[in-house]
Amino acid sequence: MNATFYDSRWIEPPEHVRVSANGGLPRGFRAAGVACGVKPSGGLDLGLLVSDSAATTSAARFTRSGTLSAPVLLTMERSDLFALRAIVVNSGNANAATGAPGLEDAARMQSEAAREAGLGDDTAVAVASTGVIGLPLPIDSVSAGIAAAGKRLRASGDTEFAEAIRTTDAFAKRVCQDVMLGAGTVRLCAQAKGAGMISPGFATLLVFVQTDARLSPQTCDLLLGVTVKRSFERISVDGQLSPSDTVILQCSGASGVRVEPESADELRLGEALDATLRQLALMVARDGEGARRVCRVVVRGGDGEAVEAVARAVANSSLVKTALYGGDPNWGRISQAVGMALPGAAPVAVDIAIEGIQVCRRGAALPHDARALADAVQRHEVEYEIGLPGEGAETELFFSDLGHEYVTINAEYTT
Amino acid sequence: MNATFYDSRWIEPPEHVRVSANGGLPRGFRAAGVACGVKPSGGLDLGLLVSDSAATTSAARFTRSGTLSAPVLLTMERSDLFALRAIVVNSGNANAATGAPGLEDAARMQSEAAREAGLGDDTAVAVASTGVIGLPLPIDSVSAGIAAAGKRLRASGDTEFAEAIRTTDAFAKRVCQDVMLGAGTVRLCAQAKGAGMISPGFATLLVFVQTDARLSPQTCDLLLGVTVKRSFERISVDGQLSPSDTVILQCSGASGVRVEPESADELRLGEALDATLRQLALMVARDGEGARRVCRVVVRGGDGEAVEAVARAVANSSLVKTALYGGDPNWGRISQAVGMALPGAAPVAVDIAIEGIQVCRRGAALPHDARALADAVQRHEVEYEIGLPGEGAETELFFSDLGHEYVTINAEYTT
Repeated sequence: MNATFYDSRWIEPPEHVRVSANGGLPRGFRAAGVACGVKPSGGLDLGLLVSDSAATTSAARFTRSGTLSAPVLLTMERSDLFALRAIVVNSGNANAATGAPGLEDAARMQSEAAREAGLGDDTAVAVASTGVIGLPLPIDSVSAGIAAAGKRLRASGDTEFAEAIRTTDAFAKRVCQDVMLGAGTVRLCAQAKGAGMISPGFATLLVFVQTDARLSPQTCDLLLGVTVKRSFERISVDGQLSPSDTVILQCSGASGVRVEPESADELRLGEALDATLRQLALMVARDGEGARRVCRVVVRGGDGEAVEAVARAVANSSLVKTALYGGDPNWGRISQAVGMALPGAAPVAVDIAIEGIQVCRRGAALPHDARALADAVQRHEVEYEIGLPGEGAETELFFSDLGHEYVTINAEYTT
Repeated sequence: MNATFYDSRWIEPPEHVRVSANGGLPRGFRAAGVACGVKPSGGLDLGLLVSDSAATTSAARFTRSGTLSAPVLLTMERSDLFALRAIVVNSGNANAATGAPGLEDAARMQSEAAREAGLGDDTAVAVASTGVIGLPLPIDSVSAGIAAAGKRLRASGDTEFAEAIRTTDAFAKRVCQDVMLGAGTVRLCAQAKGAGMISPGFATLLVFVQTDARLSPQTCDLLLGVTVKRSFERISVDGQLSPSDTVILQCSGASGVRVEPESADELRLGEALDATLRQLALMVARDGEGARRVCRVVVRGGDGEAVEAVARAVANSSLVKTALYGGDPNWGRISQAVGMALPGAAPVAVDIAIEGIQVCRRGAALPHDARALADAVQRHEVEYEIGLPGEGAETELFFSDLGHEYVTINAEYTT
């Protein structure tokens, strides 16, 4: 029964994957989430996740922002990204634009988490923060939270850990599943939060993935790199890049199931990871700004640069996004966004189809069933297909709409 | 009395310019606007503007969209852009994404306007259309409108011409003024419409400028090129590029006042044109999406590429724009947008000031008077100053906020 997690027509879960209704982390992992007082609401805001296996391998990816948060700077520079044993996260404050004091606070979080996790070496800990930018981290509260979380660590702690990393997400993004490999069954869990920069000062995509399969650091890094490119790099909520985005994959090896490079099992685990991250990414887009609808835009033809530019221009167009929100079959805005992405290239003989209904061929309007189109754009998932002259390149992007909820969330609450 | 037109602290009208309360086109020009039935509202939707002087010189600038509208394609390819005598414009339909039939319709508009203007040569006519994308132009209505407009042409027709080019602009953008040059006084008039792509399928910036000064085509082109770069290329409403943007300057020479290259009068006329276009551009930004506020962002330091990227990232950030709308002093979003514009450059030691109140120094939050800041961001015009490491480069950009009115206009009406 994969339906509870894999609920989109766009994501096909592999047959060798079974979502676990009961949850529970992969062997070797423990986690906890506590409330330490950073969030004014009093909700869970401090998460700790630990692998007890000394053979743990890992890989990480971060935002490319030029104004990196203190925890991202610290983790990139002072952690062993291939052997991360523990992750400490707070929500409610991003510890970004906080200068040298912010770096000291992040270092203290790293050090205290290492102690709670029973690790001798601070470099085995990754630090993440999400929330308001530009306010000092209340480090004493965070410190007390780390101590409290250390005492609560347990194998079933993933639910509260996932809760503690949330800011304004409308629903949890979390999965536990079993992956049947040739060499045995392994568990694959993931917790994600965020929908871009969606709320007043609250930012960030955070994704943590754990498995008890045994992978070399190189294999771990390869699988994460490929699957992140096909998932979290293919979504846009509001086109905004956070200073805090962090994705980490940890492999405890505690199942004893070894996944060798270029093996069939590497492929099978990769397929499972790919479906997991794509579904999570889609959920992040869907949760963006209290969105009504999510759209998949597929662009084919031209070259790689052109399809990417067109997909981004369509996904980030406030005109396309408001039309998506309004259920308005206004394909002229798609045509306009295509033109914007390809300056100086006119006339571009673009093809446009919405939910399989072709509305524009070689740059010119095409008669179509307007009633069928009006119905199609009312669905929760809407697909645009855009064809450019030439062939060879293809890309996709998932994006959410832009509606009153976005404005309300982002304009009407003040920091 | 320049106050009625020049109403921003950011635009300083030259002392040798006097706004005319009565209006009236420069000598040699006649114009008209009529209703021909393209707009469902029955409003004025067809404008014709003609210079009766055979010595008329002109210059033009167009959108760089890859999906150019038919009239833009036609005008760029088939008109003599240095000797445009007449302009024919319709609103209500953009004649874009209309293929070969659209080009035929644009050619028919050009030819019929030439006849009504008494011109032997179609290439002396520029064509522009603004409105819904992807619907066939009702050419018979437009044709009847051109004939009707031809009969109404008169020196005081600029008001109705300006009305006929509007789509959903909340207020008219139009000026008539006298410019005192050393060699005599000339008149300078302009009519503008549009605020980016703001309404369902309605697009486009259109700007038409007339003077009775006598300029060579080269001088005309130089002045327009320089002043467009400092005005209409420095605004953003929703970051969207229209397939139809058109700016045209016509000089009838009918005043007999000759403006020579590299003369003091060229400078004085250039200053007047610069202030005019900057004020019009600001008005376009201010009218965008029924905006509450307009912001000027100034970026200094770094190099030319960096300041431009940062200014665009801030002006097009939906998070910055919703904060501007909400009167929210959330400068963390400015910091985040800066980081997004400078990928891989972390840590960037950015300075940020809002209305002169410094909130961030060298990348770190700075204590400031929160109450003064909260008051400052409530004003109708708000200024952000951003400093990047290094010196030498500087740019500015004007942009409007993003609020409920934008969503309502763009999502809740269907085409």
